[in-house]
Amino acid sequence: MSVSVFAHPFLGALLGDAEVAACFSAEADIAAMLRFEAALAQAEAEAGVIPNAAAEAIVAAVSRMRIAPSDLAGAVARDGVVVPELVRLLRAAVGEPHAGLAHKGSTSQDVIDTSLFLRLKAAADILAARLEALMAAFDRLDAEAGALMLCGHTRMQRARPVSLAHKVAGWRDPLARHRARLPDVAMNLFRVQLGGAVGNRAELGAAAQAVADGLADRLGLLRAPRATHAERDGVVAFGHWCTLVCGTLGKFGADICLMAQNEVGEVTIAGGGGSSAMPEKNNPVAAEILVTLARFAAAQQGGLDQALVHENERSGAAWTLEWMILPQLVVAAGAATRTALALVAALRFPVAADQNGSPT
Amino acid sequence: MSVSVFAHPFLGALLGDAEVAACFSAEADIAAMLRFEAALAQAEAEAGVIPNAAAEAIVAAVSRMRIAPSDLAGAVARDGVVVPELVRLLRAAVGEPHAGLAHKGSTSQDVIDTSLFLRLKAAADILAARLEALMAAFDRLDAEAGALMLCGHTRMQRARPVSLAHKVAGWRDPLARHRARLPDVAMNLFRVQLGGAVGNRAELGAAAQAVADGLADRLGLLRAPRATHAERDGVVAFGHWCTLVCGTLGKFGADICLMAQNEVGEVTIAGGGGSSAMPEKNNPVAAEILVTLARFAAAQQGGLDQALVHENERSGAAWTLEWMILPQLVVAAGAATRTALALVAALRFPVAADQNGSPT
Amino acid sequence: MSVSVFAHPFLGALLGDAEVAACFSAEADIAAMLRFEAALAQAEAEAGVIPNAAAEAIVAAVSRMRIAPSDLAGAVARDGVVVPELVRLLRAAVGEPHAGLAHKGSTSQDVIDTSLFLRLKAAADILAARLEALMAAFDRLDAEAGALMLCGHTRMQRARPVSLAHKVAGWRDPLARHRARLPDVAMNLFRVQLGGAVGNRAELGAAAQAVADGLADRLGLLRAPRATHAERDGVVAFGHWCTLVCGTLGKFGADICLMAQNEVGEVTIAGGGGSSAMPEKNNPVAAEILVTLARFAAAQQGGLDQALVHENERSGAAWTLEWMILPQLVVAAGAATRTALALVAALRFPVAADQNGSPT
Amino acid sequence: MSVSVFAHPFLGALLGDAEVAACFSAEADIAAMLRFEAALAQAEAEAGVIPNAAAEAIVAAVSRMRIAPSDLAGAVARDGVVVPELVRLLRAAVGEPHAGLAHKGSTSQDVIDTSLFLRLKAAADILAARLEALMAAFDRLDAEAGALMLCGHTRMQRARPVSLAHKVAGWRDPLARHRARLPDVAMNLFRVQLGGAVGNRAELGAAAQAVADGLADRLGLLRAPRATHAERDGVVAFGHWCTLVCGTLGKFGADICLMAQNEVGEVTIAGGGGSSAMPEKNNPVAAEILVTLARFAAAQQGGLDQALVHENERSGAAWTLEWMILPQLVVAAGAATRTALALVAALRFPVAADQNGSPT
Repeated sequence: MSVSVFAHPFLGALLGDAEVAACFSAEADIAAMLRFEAALAQAEAEAGVIPNAAAEAIVAAVSRMRIAPSDLAGAVARDGVVVPELVRLLRAAVGEPHAGLAHKGSTSQDVIDTSLFLRLKAAADILAARLEALMAAFDRLDAEAGALMLCGHTRMQRARPVSLAHKVAGWRDPLARHRARLPDVAMNLFRVQLGGAVGNRAELGAAAQAVADGLADRLGLLRAPRATHAERDGVVAFGHWCTLVCGTLGKFGADICLMAQNEVGEVTIAGGGGSSAMPEKNNPVAAEILVTLARFAAAQQGGLDQALVHENERSGAAWTLEWMILPQLVVAAGAATRTALALVAALRFPVAADQNGSPT
Repeated sequence: MSVSVFAHPFLGALLGDAEVAACFSAEADIAAMLRFEAALAQAEAEAGVIPNAAAEAIVAAVSRMRIAPSDLAGAVARDGVVVPELVRLLRAAVGEPHAGLAHKGSTSQDVIDTSLFLRLKAAADILAARLEALMAAFDRLDAEAGALMLCGHTRMQRARPVSLAHKVAGWRDPLARHRARLPDVAMNLFRVQLGGAVGNRAELGAAAQAVADGLADRLGLLRAPRATHAERDGVVAFGHWCTLVCGTLGKFGADICLMAQNEVGEVTIAGGGGSSAMPEKNNPVAAEILVTLARFAAAQQGGLDQALVHENERSGAAWTLEWMILPQLVVAAGAATRTALALVAALRFPVAADQNGSPT
Repeated sequence: MSVSVFAHPFLGALLGDAEVAACFSAEADIAAMLRFEAALAQAEAEAGVIPNAAAEAIVAAVSRMRIAPSDLAGAVARDGVVVPELVRLLRAAVGEPHAGLAHKGSTSQDVIDTSLFLRLKAAADILAARLEALMAAFDRLDAEAGALMLCGHTRMQRARPVSLAHKVAGWRDPLARHRARLPDVAMNLFRVQLGGAVGNRAELGAAAQAVADGLADRLGLLRAPRATHAERDGVVAFGHWCTLVCGTLGKFGADICLMAQNEVGEVTIAGGGGSSAMPEKNNPVAAEILVTLARFAAAQQGGLDQALVHENERSGAAWTLEWMILPQLVVAAGAATRTALALVAALRFPVAADQNGSPT
Repeated sequence: MSVSVFAHPFLGALLGDAEVAACFSAEADIAAMLRFEAALAQAEAEAGVIPNAAAEAIVAAVSRMRIAPSDLAGAVARDGVVVPELVRLLRAAVGEPHAGLAHKGSTSQDVIDTSLFLRLKAAADILAARLEALMAAFDRLDAEAGALMLCGHTRMQRARPVSLAHKVAGWRDPLARHRARLPDVAMNLFRVQLGGAVGNRAELGAAAQAVADGLADRLGLLRAPRATHAERDGVVAFGHWCTLVCGTLGKFGADICLMAQNEVGEVTIAGGGGSSAMPEKNNPVAAEILVTLARFAAAQQGGLDQALVHENERSGAAWTLEWMILPQLVVAAGAATRTALALVAALRFPVAADQNGSPT
C-alpha cells in the first residue's frame, strides 16, 4: 500500500528518508515495547516488587519471542492499542507461575509512549548529526564561494548586492539555533513513562519511584518523578522542532528555486530533474521538495497541536492523532535534511569561476 | 516501513481502509498511467496524429509490460516525477520504428493527473456506496429505536429531552447532503487532463481537442476543453468533500463517546476495546477513531488548501504537496465510513428494551 | 485594538475589505438578531402561537430599541453567548403583559445562527459580484493583450511559449467554476435556523413547521424542515468556498510576482509599492498580498474544519471556534477579490506594445 | 469593525485579552517604531555615523510627533508597509538640514521587526506573570482540595481512583515547563533587528556593529551580530510557545467540561453561563473557551509555520502572513491564561465538603 509517500515504492526515494523511517517501523516498535517489558521486570525485581525468578522468566521470554507485526492487527482493530495483545502473547511466552507478573503496574500508554520516546531519541540523534553535517556543508560552501557577489532581492524585486556568504549565513545560522534548541526539547521528551492504569503509579505502591528510576536507567532515558500520560507538551514540542527544521530548509529550497531560474541564473544544480516532454530541462527537484516538505510539516504541525487537548487521564482520540501525525513530521524532517545535504553538494555557482579565476 | 498508519502492519487495520487504499497503490498508479498511454495512442491514431500501426504497437507494449514499482525509484528521486522513466521503459518496449510516438503531445502532468483522477473516481464510488450504506444503517437504527427518549445536552450540560430519532437525524442528514454534493465535485474533477509541455496542447495542433475527447471517452472520464495543470480547485474541492465526510462522522463519534460514558450510560458498544491494565473496561475505540480521523482530515485539509498556490504553468512544490496529502485525506474518509458502519452496527441502547418492551 | 489586520487602522486598508467586513460588525449582528426576534413573533402570531398584540408589541419594541454593542460585553463574558442579555433587554422593552412571549420557542443558537446566515448571504452577494467583475476584467485583459506571447515556465524553469490568453484562462476559469459552485453552497446555508432549546422544536409543538416557514419567508431565507444546530457542514462548506476563492487568487498573485521579477520582466504593476531604503523599487504589493491571503485562508480553513466535531445538541467549544475563524475567512475572500480587481487593472505588459504596434 | 473576536465590542470580553492586545495596538506600534528611529539616531551619533546635532533633531522630532494611525492607511495600502510613510513624516518633522539622516542605514523591516520584538517582549512578560499566577492558583487548589478522591477516566470510560492532586499536577506541571522554556524562546527573539536594505548592514559600513549594539542597548533588546530579516525561526518559535500554553489550558478546559457534566458531577463552576431557553442551566463557558482557544491556536500555528518559507532577502508574502497570524496567537495565549485564572477561582468541588468535614 502506498497511501503515504513515505512508504511508497517509488515516491519514497524522492520524499522519504529510510534511515529516520526505520525508527517508526512496526518491528522497531515491537522490539522497543518488549525491551520496556523486560527492563520493567528487572527494575521491579530490583525494587522487590516481583521475584527475581519472575524477572528472569520475563527477560528470557522477551529474548525468545518472535512477533510478526501483522499478527497483532486483529487485536489492535478491536482494542485500539497493541499492548493488550502484546501482553497476552508475552504472558503466554513467560508461562506459569510468572505469567501474571509481566507488565505489572504498567498500562498500554506506558509501553507505547516509552517505545516512542526511545525511537524518537534515535531519530533525534540522526537529525542532530544531519544538522551538523549541513552546517559543515554550508561552511564549506561559504569558504569556497562566499565572496561571490549576487543581487539581493526583497519582495521579489532586485535590490542591493549581497555576497553569497550573506545568503549562506541565512541558511546556516537557523540550523545552528535548531541544533542548540535540541537539548531543551530532549530534556522534556526522552524520559521514562511509567504511570499504570490512570497514571498515578498506584499499582506499584511505595516502590513506584524506584521502579521508574530503574526502568529509566536500563532504557537510557531520563528519570521522571511522575507519569505524564495526558501532558503532551514534550511530544508536541518535538514536532515544533521538526517543523522549524523543515521550515528553515524550505526557505533554503525556495531561495535556490528562485536563484536557479533561467532568467536569474545565479546557480545551477548538478544532476537536476528531467522532463518527459522537454528533455533539455533541468528541474530544481531537490529545492522544490524542500519547499514541499516545509509546507507539509507546517500543516501536520497544526494537526499535532490539536492533540494537546487530551481529555482526562488518557484520551484515545487525541493520542491516536499523535500516532497519525508525529511520525510523518519526524520523517519529513529527515527527508528535508537528507535532501538539503544532497542539494548543497549539487549547487554550482557559474559566476564564481569568473571571480575566483578557477572553476568551482 | 510504517511511518503512516495507513500502511502500518497493525495500526492499518484500526485506522486504515484497505479498499480505498488500493486506489493509491503504486501498482494501480502504474496500471492507470499505462492505460493513459495506450488510450492516448489510440485517440491519436483515430485523429490522424500518429499511424495506426504505432498505436497498435504502443497498446501491445502496454499490455506486455510488467513494471515493478521499486524499479522506478531511482529515476523518480532524480526527476521528481515518475513519467520520464516510465516513458523510457514504454518506448523501449514499443521499439522502433514507433518508439518515439509513444507519449506524443503529452507531459508528465497529463499522465499523473489523469491516473489520479481515474483512481479518485474509483475511490469516490466506494465512498458514495459507503455513505448510502451508512444512511441505510441510520434509517434502520431510527426504525428500531428512534422512539427512545434521551436527555439532550447543550454545552456539555443536561438540557431537555430528545428522541434518539432526533439524534440519528443529526448524524444521517449531513451524510445525505454530502452524497448530494458528490456529482458537483465529480463534474469538476473526473475529467481528462491533456495539455502537453506547458498545458496549451500546442504539440497536438489542430487535432488537440479530438485527441483529448477520444482519450476522455476511452478512459471513461469527462471531456475537457482545456487542460488545467495549474488549476487545482477540482482536486482541492474533492479534499474538502472528504473532510466534510470525516467531520460529520467525527461528530457522530464524539456523540457516542459522550453517550457511552459510564455515568451517562445512554449507549453501549458491543465488542469494544480492551485494556492491558483494566480487563473490565470497554473502550469506545471506534467512536474515538472517528474523532481522530475528523481532526486528522481537518489538518490535512489545511495543508491541501496551500497547494492551490500553484505557480506558473506547473509547480513542482505545490503539486508534490498534493501527492503527500490527498491520498491520506481520501483514505481517512474511507476509514471513517468503514469505522462508522461498524460502529452503528455495534450500538446497543439498553434503555430501549425497557421502553419498547422488547430487546433491541 | 488592532490584533487583527482586518480591524487595524492602517493595515486594514492593505489587507481588509470594509464592504465585506461590514457584514460582521456587531451592529449588523444585533440588527439581524432583533430582526429575527421580530419576524419570529410575527410568524408565531400568524401560526396562532402567540396573540397578535404580543407580536405587535415585540415588533414595536424591536423598532425602538437602540443597543450599544459594548453594553452587552459583560453579560457575554458570563454567558458565553449574547442572546440571554439581548432577550432580557428585549423583554424589558416589550414590557408586560407580552414580555414573556418574546423569543418564544427559540434559543440562543437560533438567533445567532440565523443572524449569521443572513449576513453571510449578504457577504456572498458581494463576493459573487466581485467574481463576476473579476471574470469580466480578465476577459478584457484577454481581449486587449491575450495574443502576447510569453515564455511558459514549469517547475520554475523556462519551458515552451504560451500566450497571455493561456495564462489568463488559468486565472479566470477557476473563478467561473467558483461562481457556479455558489448556488449549491447557498442552498445548504442560507436557511432559517429554528430549533428551540435542544433543536427539536419541541416548545412550538404542532405549529413548529408553520412558524419556521413563516420566519424563513419573512427573512428571505430558505425554509428548513428541521433545525441543524449541531450539523455544521453548511457553514464549513461556505468556508471551503472562500478558501477556493482565496487560493485561486493566490495562484494569480504568485504568477504576477514571478512575472514581475526584474529579470523576467513580463509585466509591470502601475502604482506599486515603495521602499523606505530603496526609493527606486516598485514592489508587487497587491500580488504578494494575494499569496498571503491564500495561505492565511488555508490555515483558517484547517481550523474551521475542526469545528465539524460538534458534540451533542450544541457544542459551546466548537461553535465558538466558528465565530473566531469564519468571519476572517470570509473577509479574506473579500480582501482577495478586492485586491485582485485592483491588480488586474494595474497590470502593464510592456512587450505587448512592441507586438501589437500600439501601447497597452 | 468586528471581524476578529479580539476586537469585537461584545465577544472581546469573552474571548480576548485587553492587556495583551494593547501590545498590538497601532498606537503602540507607532510609538515603538518612533522609539526605534530615535534610538537609531542616537546610536549612530555615538558611532560617528551622523552628527550629534542630527541625532538631537531626530530625537526632538520623535518626541513632538503625533501620528493618528488612520493617517497612514492610504500609504500602507500602496506600499505594503508603513515605514516609507512614517519616515516621510519623520523627515518632514526633523526638517533641514538633518531630515535625510533620519532612518539612515535602516529599512522597513528593521523598524517593523524591532517594534514587534519590543512589544512581544512586553507580551511575554504579561504571559510569564500569568503562568506564575496560574501555577500558584493550582498550588492553592492542591493545598485546599488535593486529597479529594475522584474517579480517573481513560478513553472516556471510568477507570481507577485518582486524587484531585493528581489531576491538578497534570494541569500545573506543563505550565511550569512552559515557564522554564521561555528564556530560551526569548534569547532567540528579543534581539535588535538592524540590517538595512538587504540585511547585510552595508549602508553602515565599519560602524554597523557599533550602531546595532548601541541601538540594542538603548532599546533593552539583546545585541545581534547579524540581521535576521529572512530567518523567522525566532518569531515562529514564540508562536509555538503560545500554542503550547493554549493547548495545555485547553486540556484543563476539556477536563473541567467533562468533570462538570451533570451526570459526572465532580465539579461545579461558580457564576457559570446562562441560557436564553433554559434559565436553570449553568454552562461551563470558561472551560469551553479554553478548548476553543486551544483549537484556534493550533490552527493559527499551522499557518504561522508556513511563514518560515521566506524567499530571498525579504518576502512580502511570508512576512505579511506573520502580521495576520502572530498577534492573534499571542492574544489567544493571553485570553487563555486570563480565562484559566478565572476558571480556577470559580471551581467548586462539592464532594470535598463531605470528605474533609468542612466546606470548600
